[in-house]
Amino acid sequence: MTRDLTIAEVRLTPILVADPPLLNTQGVHQPYTPRLIVEIVTADGITGLGETYGDTKYLEPARTLAGRLTGRSVMDVNGLFGIDLAVDPSRVEGEADAGGLRGVQTADKLRLSVLSAFEVACLDAQGKALGLPVHALLGGKVRDAVEYSAYLFYKWDGHPAGVPAEPDEWGAALDPAGVVAQARRLQERHGFGSFKLKGGVFPPDEEIAAVRALAAAFPGHPLRLDPNGAWSVPTSLKVAKELAGVLEYLEDPALGTPAMAEVAAGTDVPLATNMCVTTFGEIAEAFTKDAVQVVLSDHHYWGGLRNTQHLAAICAAFGVGVSMHSNTHLGISLAAMTQVAATVPNLHHACDSHYPWQSEDILTERLAFTDGRVAVSDAPGLGVELDRDELARLHRRWTEDDGALRDRDDAAAMRTARPDWRTPAMPRW
Amino acid sequence: MTRDLTIAEVRLTPILVADPPLLNTQGVHQPYTPRLIVEIVTADGITGLGETYGDTKYLEPARTLAGRLTGRSVMDVNGLFGIDLAVDPSRVEGEADAGGLRGVQTADKLRLSVLSAFEVACLDAQGKALGLPVHALLGGKVRDAVEYSAYLFYKWDGHPAGVPAEPDEWGAALDPAGVVAQARRLQERHGFGSFKLKGGVFPPDEEIAAVRALAAAFPGHPLRLDPNGAWSVPTSLKVAKELAGVLEYLEDPALGTPAMAEVAAGTDVPLATNMCVTTFGEIAEAFTKDAVQVVLSDHHYWGGLRNTQHLAAICAAFGVGVSMHSNTHLGISLAAMTQVAATVPNLHHACDSHYPWQSEDILTERLAFTDGRVAVSDAPGLGVELDRDELARLHRRWTEDDGALRDRDDAAAMRTARPDWRTPAMPRW
Repeated sequence: MTRDLTIAEVRLTPILVADPPLLNTQGVHQPYTPRLIVEIVTADGITGLGETYGDTKYLEPARTLAGRLTGRSVMDVNGLFGIDLAVDPSRVEGEADAGGLRGVQTADKLRLSVLSAFEVACLDAQGKALGLPVHALLGGKVRDAVEYSAYLFYKWDGHPAGVPAEPDEWGAALDPAGVVAQARRLQERHGFGSFKLKGGVFPPDEEIAAVRALAAAFPGHPLRLDPNGAWSVPTSLKVAKELAGVLEYLEDPALGTPAMAEVAAGTDVPLATNMCVTTFGEIAEAFTKDAVQVVLSDHHYWGGLRNTQHLAAICAAFGVGVSMHSNTHLGISLAAMTQVAATVPNLHHACDSHYPWQSEDILTERLAFTDGRVAVSDAPGLGVELDRDELARLHRRWTEDDGALRDRDDAAAMRTARPDWRTPAMPRW
Repeated sequence: MTRDLTIAEVRLTPILVADPPLLNTQGVHQPYTPRLIVEIVTADGITGLGETYGDTKYLEPARTLAGRLTGRSVMDVNGLFGIDLAVDPSRVEGEADAGGLRGVQTADKLRLSVLSAFEVACLDAQGKALGLPVHALLGGKVRDAVEYSAYLFYKWDGHPAGVPAEPDEWGAALDPAGVVAQARRLQERHGFGSFKLKGGVFPPDEEIAAVRALAAAFPGHPLRLDPNGAWSVPTSLKVAKELAGVLEYLEDPALGTPAMAEVAAGTDVPLATNMCVTTFGEIAEAFTKDAVQVVLSDHHYWGGLRNTQHLAAICAAFGVGVSMHSNTHLGISLAAMTQVAATVPNLHHACDSHYPWQSEDILTERLAFTDGRVAVSDAPGLGVELDRDELARLHRRWTEDDGALRDRDDAAAMRTARPDWRTPAMPRW
């Protein structure tokens, strides 16, 4: 073989991507959210793509990592995890993120979230160099399409007046009727067969009413509710009781493994998490306490596609279900999620994806949901192609930003509408 | 790419391999032991090699599997695990193997042991077709050589008189001096830095004396003792107490997870196992009970190299150590063990290997231990080549056998010397 799989160059491009005013328990999505696009270029000129969080705290270790990759082989993904990214734990762990949307912040999670984009970029480059889809590099697909759920959000009609933002076509959703209308539109457009509501925004009774309205509108379709840990144990148990038989699972009703274990002990509704089990070190406690029945994998959290497969194997061994979490992401990550999801035999729940909310992407062709599914690409690598003009445009937006948007802060975004807003103390209810 | 990775042919070759009279708690190794060599041939004529148990009960499902592979891609290894091998559980699980050397026999274990050889053969074929070593297909090596331990056995000078057998050059080892002499010779020949004694053969005090003699002869070198579950909990605790500070770990002193948990609770000597945790379904109980501190992986047991990586990830998440088990095997399996071991970051113990005891192999070139290590091959695939003449010779031996040796039975072999020998009731001591 004459291929040269040596890494010759790594390009990092932070961008700002339009995001609608989606509500969660922390606040509201910023009008633009930071993402980082990673390109790993081989000596043969093949480019592998990866994508991860773009906030400054991710960007810094990403730059450290990028500076250490030239001369290595794109095949050497296990070796990536031994590279010191010089993450300062005291800085990361000092951040008041304990009540954030992805659980307790640690240096390890940050490190893995950065590494994930590089692992995916290496796999994409491998696939392109070898003429194989990424799933084949992961042992091969066990399904031809991956099912996603409709990700429903309480939502304002638009970002606060006076804030620079892209308009969106979705309108407001602030009550059961609005949520059902949003679900119907997502279903019509993408064919989704299951629905997840991001909760923790309104008092639990209102969110219970919204889920009941969804159950009435879509009988027999799996439904999920995710308040991001906004509830106390008694509130969680009350909601679980009221929605027993209605929910496929209840996601992160309470914060932390001990609270989740207490809720789990008091209900037959399966509990899912992407907050108390988000890294390998958190698994043992949660699984031995039977605190969660479904783990939402996320290749960004867990350090890439191979680690996602490991996580799924751990879940299988412990009889814990596997689903997939999503944060605001673009098509590179959706392609990566789809490739790895295709290889996980015990993925029995539809995956989450924010992608329908992202009107902008940096691909020449957007990925499509058909009947709520993304077809598993058999093209080399991830099967996606970068639109360099669009990448440059979104990077310009990042460059021109004064720094206000470069670090996502949903509470700060909320303060533009409600100046008195503070990150809520948890549990809120 | 013009490569055609379609499977065009699968060849199964059962063989009988010379084995010295090594003693264990069940009896003695037969003079010849069955192995199965799997060849998977692509449409391009590339041949991938795999190796597993050759007993009839493995051979039958292997034939079923072989019959279902043509037309599939060698890349599709995850898909192998969905193929029905038509294993009849009642037949397998009815076998009196509960006290055997690999724990309780189940249909699932049998299935995975068969699949392992096909997974390895597919990976070998992939590597040869793509010009990549198997470790690169598994994410890349994290070390350049894999350390093995000297596998010490109590041993007769030769097989019983009148039994057809190959002579061996090792002599007897039936007491501490014999064990130390054997260890010294293995060290001189292969450079091993750690030592494992297969115990359960003599009363525990004699085996304690042998380990103490090893500790005196090889100060500072890691030592292990493995009686294959031959001891009661009190005996296990007594041995652990006497050898505390001497053993790196004590392997399967007692049979089954509850007994191992009891032993573990009573000693600080780490317990290792390849008997109570040999398949994914056995992990949860053992880990939640803290019954074992080290799992000896074995790609034959666990269904191949990717599953071995998953197992290691599970162990990492639960703070359980990883080592590697070995049964009588040839160079294909040693190459596979070395390739996967090279990719496992948390492999902190030297691996076991019977290979030094196998005077015969079906490779054109034997693998070598240097300073107790096997260099991780960077050649395409496993980096080994089949010696077809030798394969044919050992297959002829299998063909010409009247069936007496085609199913390994260490107790039956023992009866040729001691007609009154019965499979010992466990615990023996």
